[in-house]
Amino acid sequence: MSPPISTADRHAALRAALTDIAEHRIAEGGLAALKARDLAKEAGCSLGAIYLHFPDLDALVFAVQARTLDLLDAAVSAAAGEGAAPAPRILALSLAYLDWAAANRPRWAALFEHRLAADAEVPPDYRAQRARLFRHVEAPLTALLPQATPAEREAMARSIFAAVHGIVSLGLDEKLETTPLPALRAQLAAVVLALARGLAAPG
Amino acid sequence: MSPPISTADRHAALRAALTDIAEHRIAEGGLAALKARDLAKEAGCSLGAIYLHFPDLDALVFAVQARTLDLLDAAVSAAAGEGAAPAPRILALSLAYLDWAAANRPRWAALFEHRLAADAEVPPDYRAQRARLFRHVEAPLTALLPQATPAEREAMARSIFAAVHGIVSLGLDEKLETTPLPALRAQLAAVVLALARGLAAPG
Repeated sequence: MSPPISTADRHAALRAALTDIAEHRIAEGGLAALKARDLAKEAGCSLGAIYLHFPDLDALVFAVQARTLDLLDAAVSAAAGEGAAPAPRILALSLAYLDWAAANRPRWAALFEHRLAADAEVPPDYRAQRARLFRHVEAPLTALLPQATPAEREAMARSIFAAVHGIVSLGLDEKLETTPLPALRAQLAAVVLALARGLAAPG
Repeated sequence: MSPPISTADRHAALRAALTDIAEHRIAEGGLAALKARDLAKEAGCSLGAIYLHFPDLDALVFAVQARTLDLLDAAVSAAAGEGAAPAPRILALSLAYLDWAAANRPRWAALFEHRLAADAEVPPDYRAQRARLFRHVEAPLTALLPQATPAEREAMARSIFAAVHGIVSLGLDEKLETTPLPALRAQLAAVVLALARGLAAPG
């Protein structure tokens, strides 16, 4: 005879189930596909039960976004070892970001579409996880900008990430004329390599 | 005695009034501030009357976005004459974009937050107007990339716009640690000038 399931276990199981369902919905249809009523129906719980496990729907979205950042970080980390010189290293990271975004568009877009109420705070763990994503660019920047302070390198890593994100974001946006992926990869490469050349040759 | 107001005039007046009200709401509070019911109330018309003048709320949003692009284009155009060499010219355009976005955040953000239904089309006029915004970068690129074909220059202008937009967008995003405007301007300048240096010195 199996032991009785504790209340704490049932709570943890429902919390995990709600996160799984929300993750699946966001991965398929983006944030627009996340409705509390549908979630409750699919999880077989009441609408109120969701709010026993998450203070609000934003908290559930952040639980999913943390999983998304884990997957994105794994894809970018896998590319971090590629290339010996700084420029090809930054390029490999940039292309890995593009390829992952192109292959996971709804959940990638959800990272940036999620809008919080004016008085709501981004969870500190989530901030830290996102900051780690910029860090990958800092290592190759050390070789490219040997004179820079760590703070300057950190700011530049963040700006390079932002520039790459802008090219990926407008390139994949269905509202703009979508650029075919090979052309977008070539364009991203042209910009990233020019930027690396320019950083290596101070004006 | 003034002549009677024609039905066509009354229609045009209500259409203009609805666009004005929507523009004001988006400029104050972004897309989230645009609700058909509130619009109708403020315009003193029925909810149904909105849909006599606009096929749907997206069409009204596009009417406002066209005005936003006009204002943004005017701000960027004003900077297009600054600087003689290509790099300071591209920098002036980039800083004008950042400054305008920072000063008009809700309506600037609305340009990129607006999501259409999957089967909806972006109006061709709006596409053309948006494409003109990238054009400003093409003129200085001619001097920087004399060997490039017009198509290559157009693609590079678009990518530079996208990279600048990415830095502006993540820099102004209230979800990320917001960078103070002077630091963001300095960061944008570092990236744009490095990119221009790298483009001028092909690898």
